[in-house]
Amino acid sequence: MFLTSSGQARSGLLWALRHVRRASGAPARDPRFAALEDSDLQFFDSVLGAGGVVTDPHSLQPFNEDWLGKYKGSTRVALKPKTTEQAAAILRHCNSRRLAVVPQGGNTGLVGGSVPVYDEVVVSTVCMNKVLSFDTVSGTLTAQAGCILEALDSHVAGHGYCMPLDLGAKGSCQIGGNVSTNAGGLRLLRYGSLHGSVLGLEAVLPGGEVLDLLTTLRKDNTGYDLKQLFIGAEGTLGLVTAVAIQCPPRPLAVNVAYLAVPTFAVAQQVLVAAKRQLGEVLSAFEFLDRESLAITLRHLPGTKDPLPGCQAPIFLVVETSGSSAAHDSDKLERFLEGVMEEGLVLDGVLAQDSAQVQQVWQLREGITTALRHRGAVYKYDVSLPISQMYALVEEMRTRLTTALPHLAGSSGGAGSGGGGGGDGSDDDGPPIRVAGYGHLGDGNLHLNISVPGYSKEICEQIEPYVYEWTAQHRGSVSAEHGLGLMKAGCIGYSKPPAAVAVMRQIKAALDPHGIMNPYKVLPPEL
Amino acid sequence: MFLTSSGQARSGLLWALRHVRRASGAPARDPRFAALEDSDLQFFDSVLGAGGVVTDPHSLQPFNEDWLGKYKGSTRVALKPKTTEQAAAILRHCNSRRLAVVPQGGNTGLVGGSVPVYDEVVVSTVCMNKVLSFDTVSGTLTAQAGCILEALDSHVAGHGYCMPLDLGAKGSCQIGGNVSTNAGGLRLLRYGSLHGSVLGLEAVLPGGEVLDLLTTLRKDNTGYDLKQLFIGAEGTLGLVTAVAIQCPPRPLAVNVAYLAVPTFAVAQQVLVAAKRQLGEVLSAFEFLDRESLAITLRHLPGTKDPLPGCQAPIFLVVETSGSSAAHDSDKLERFLEGVMEEGLVLDGVLAQDSAQVQQVWQLREGITTALRHRGAVYKYDVSLPISQMYALVEEMRTRLTTALPHLAGSSGGAGSGGGGGGDGSDDDGPPIRVAGYGHLGDGNLHLNISVPGYSKEICEQIEPYVYEWTAQHRGSVSAEHGLGLMKAGCIGYSKPPAAVAVMRQIKAALDPHGIMNPYKVLPPEL
Repeated sequence: MFLTSSGQARSGLLWALRHVRRASGAPARDPRFAALEDSDLQFFDSVLGAGGVVTDPHSLQPFNEDWLGKYKGSTRVALKPKTTEQAAAILRHCNSRRLAVVPQGGNTGLVGGSVPVYDEVVVSTVCMNKVLSFDTVSGTLTAQAGCILEALDSHVAGHGYCMPLDLGAKGSCQIGGNVSTNAGGLRLLRYGSLHGSVLGLEAVLPGGEVLDLLTTLRKDNTGYDLKQLFIGAEGTLGLVTAVAIQCPPRPLAVNVAYLAVPTFAVAQQVLVAAKRQLGEVLSAFEFLDRESLAITLRHLPGTKDPLPGCQAPIFLVVETSGSSAAHDSDKLERFLEGVMEEGLVLDGVLAQDSAQVQQVWQLREGITTALRHRGAVYKYDVSLPISQMYALVEEMRTRLTTALPHLAGSSGGAGSGGGGGGDGSDDDGPPIRVAGYGHLGDGNLHLNISVPGYSKEICEQIEPYVYEWTAQHRGSVSAEHGLGLMKAGCIGYSKPPAAVAVMRQIKAALDPHGIMNPYKVLPPEL
Repeated sequence: MFLTSSGQARSGLLWALRHVRRASGAPARDPRFAALEDSDLQFFDSVLGAGGVVTDPHSLQPFNEDWLGKYKGSTRVALKPKTTEQAAAILRHCNSRRLAVVPQGGNTGLVGGSVPVYDEVVVSTVCMNKVLSFDTVSGTLTAQAGCILEALDSHVAGHGYCMPLDLGAKGSCQIGGNVSTNAGGLRLLRYGSLHGSVLGLEAVLPGGEVLDLLTTLRKDNTGYDLKQLFIGAEGTLGLVTAVAIQCPPRPLAVNVAYLAVPTFAVAQQVLVAAKRQLGEVLSAFEFLDRESLAITLRHLPGTKDPLPGCQAPIFLVVETSGSSAAHDSDKLERFLEGVMEEGLVLDGVLAQDSAQVQQVWQLREGITTALRHRGAVYKYDVSLPISQMYALVEEMRTRLTTALPHLAGSSGGAGSGGGGGGDGSDDDGPPIRVAGYGHLGDGNLHLNISVPGYSKEICEQIEPYVYEWTAQHRGSVSAEHGLGLMKAGCIGYSKPPAAVAVMRQIKAALDPHGIMNPYKVLPPEL
């Protein structure tokens, strides 16, 4: 495994990665796995043809590296099957040869789950990109795993439906990867998780057997619901090759309000009011704190502060989606009048057209990219009881300011009125900035710590503290990003030993040689 | 295993049950299981106290028999733990002693899943009936498995929330049983399945280990989502002892329309229009055919025909639930005007108050009870592509009329204008009547064949034809009722051998001695 960061970040990242591997107890490379031989390549050529087998080092680079540039493997081959039968032939061969495999979709994950750790064979679903069917009466879509989420949404839009999930990476992520990582995103509050909306799937088991669960039925109580195991298994139990998914009717009207509130406690009161008064048309309830806003305004070109000069510590993005523009506006106006009258909201703006809707969403969706532009980022994605979720951000700020005053000391942070607020000033704040944002309605916090470079000194202040704090509050150390390589050693913070033991039994039953996405999700047994 | 039906039905039922057992290949009684001894009862007494151990034959009767009177076991003991620790001690003992166990909730199932087949120990959750917590901001409820669904709905109603499922048996079914059987019901169209709304659960594994997955987080991607395995496992993998569930905001307004349509094809057009125009407030889209209506009007006291004299073959119950009565009525009126103008609907009525809402729902929900009053019933619960779902009812009518003209010949059935229509006449039709109703919006058909008594002659005309027809159309032979004992031999109609093999692996891993609810769900291996 090689590092891709250059310059000052390199040694810090090296340490961080070693730390992850130490924590998970992973060996340098599992000696049970064979190394690729020429005869393997010949076999792959015979199945896929030359166009489906990538071996040239330059072309392999994007298969070996994640988009954050944080994880890099050293595979010698990436395979691009077009059909389930081809994928099955590949896995059957790899299983019999004990070649480790890493399934790869759009490679947009954040935890190193979709790239090789060492020399695993990459099986990419990029060429499995056909829509198989769409039923316009029931709204059920069946598609190959490699279809891009945004392309599927456009496809069903033509029939008056929408995809039941939406996330920042929609332009490049694939539905198979969405399902394999149980992607959450912005509309989970409205349409629920993929465990509810995926109706069926097809997966190739590690031994090459095709598990055809690709029905489009909304209800099917015939035995254990095996498809659920593959939703969120991050490719460790098999390769998802096709998905059937329930699409809701496409909303005819979308409204977005951007609100400033004085505290996170008040934000919760606004959430309760929104659920009560917006009811069935509430489709997103997101938050960002002033640090997130300031970093985005400064580092993401084209962004604009919807409430210039407002120094509130917490901002909310409240969206409605419904079938009647008049009804939705009516509900939203009553809701806004109510929360204004009660003094819950300091200031707010209602997007007046689709350009303004886009502008507000760009602020919320662009935070990840803006943070990347600023430099290195320690990223955490935790679920917490809503009442507790912002306390972790505040405690982390205090902790870093106390331990590293020369790096984190002068930041204002939320609530202090200090520099780096949403005032569009040139001040980029102290070297370390702690940003909190996320899916408030779902209790899902994205805690991001922007730093000058990855270092042991900083990391030790953050980990394992952030995981321990989350565990103490009965939270999840991975709400929607998954465990991947980054957090395979952290499962114990959110799952009891009995559960991990059952997961190991299931892994052993379905993948007896452990070839599927090794080193990920489950920590190696000691 | 004894039979409970008396008189003429007895020999037919005996045949039917033997047939089920033959189909599943189950042995007379699995010789691996031990028989209960006095020392076992002493142990149970020591754990539960005398009040928690039922051994008196008269008191055991309701634990041994299902509510249809179709299945009856011969257990010698029923246990009523109050806590998870007590349940764990019981299972640990049974596992070490190789005593088979049947978990039992409200015992409202329809496939013989919740009663003993032979002398299995009944573990009833009836005394595990405490609400553990309710979070008013997020709407998450945590409750012991034995809580009655209707009681939970009343509990959360006080905070402005409702349970995400509703079914006819709500007054006696328990949430643990709902989860274990993945109950669907009337509002699945709106709130989705339990695979989406159950946030966490606690289960005791067969060996007595407690699997604590009882978090209330909406998002948690840390490893395989094991709770999903227990949703719909019908108690064969462990005993569900507590459940955390996401409750949606309680609708402030409910409207119900009752519509008559000329064909099932037109009913589908009305569904598409309802999804488009009612959008987010559509909460149920049910259908009943004229046979179902006629039987209900005749056999269920207190029912009234909402459209007297209307001879339509298909009737629809369309419900909206929303946060604004004015908006919902507005949407519903536009929708009704549209479908009337297009000539899709022959006649219809909009319930004017909650009493009328009740009246309409009583017709739909009361069909099961009305059929029971008429006599013996062959009940099938299948999922099919919506376009195909009523064809099975029509083909079954033709098939029975052709094969058994003396029993089924003179029925009008839907569309023929014959006797037994919704005209409130005294004519109870021919001895055999085929009724079709169910959850049209979910593609879930309840096919019920009302007969004078269970007989080989009739059954051979129905089975395996109904299962084969369903399989040919890629449907499910059990949409929401589960497999239980009745359909354990039928899993192959809806799941491929590779899936059944994986289920067996999971069963063997979690329950190596096979003590949990034996003879159910999975057919015995040959």
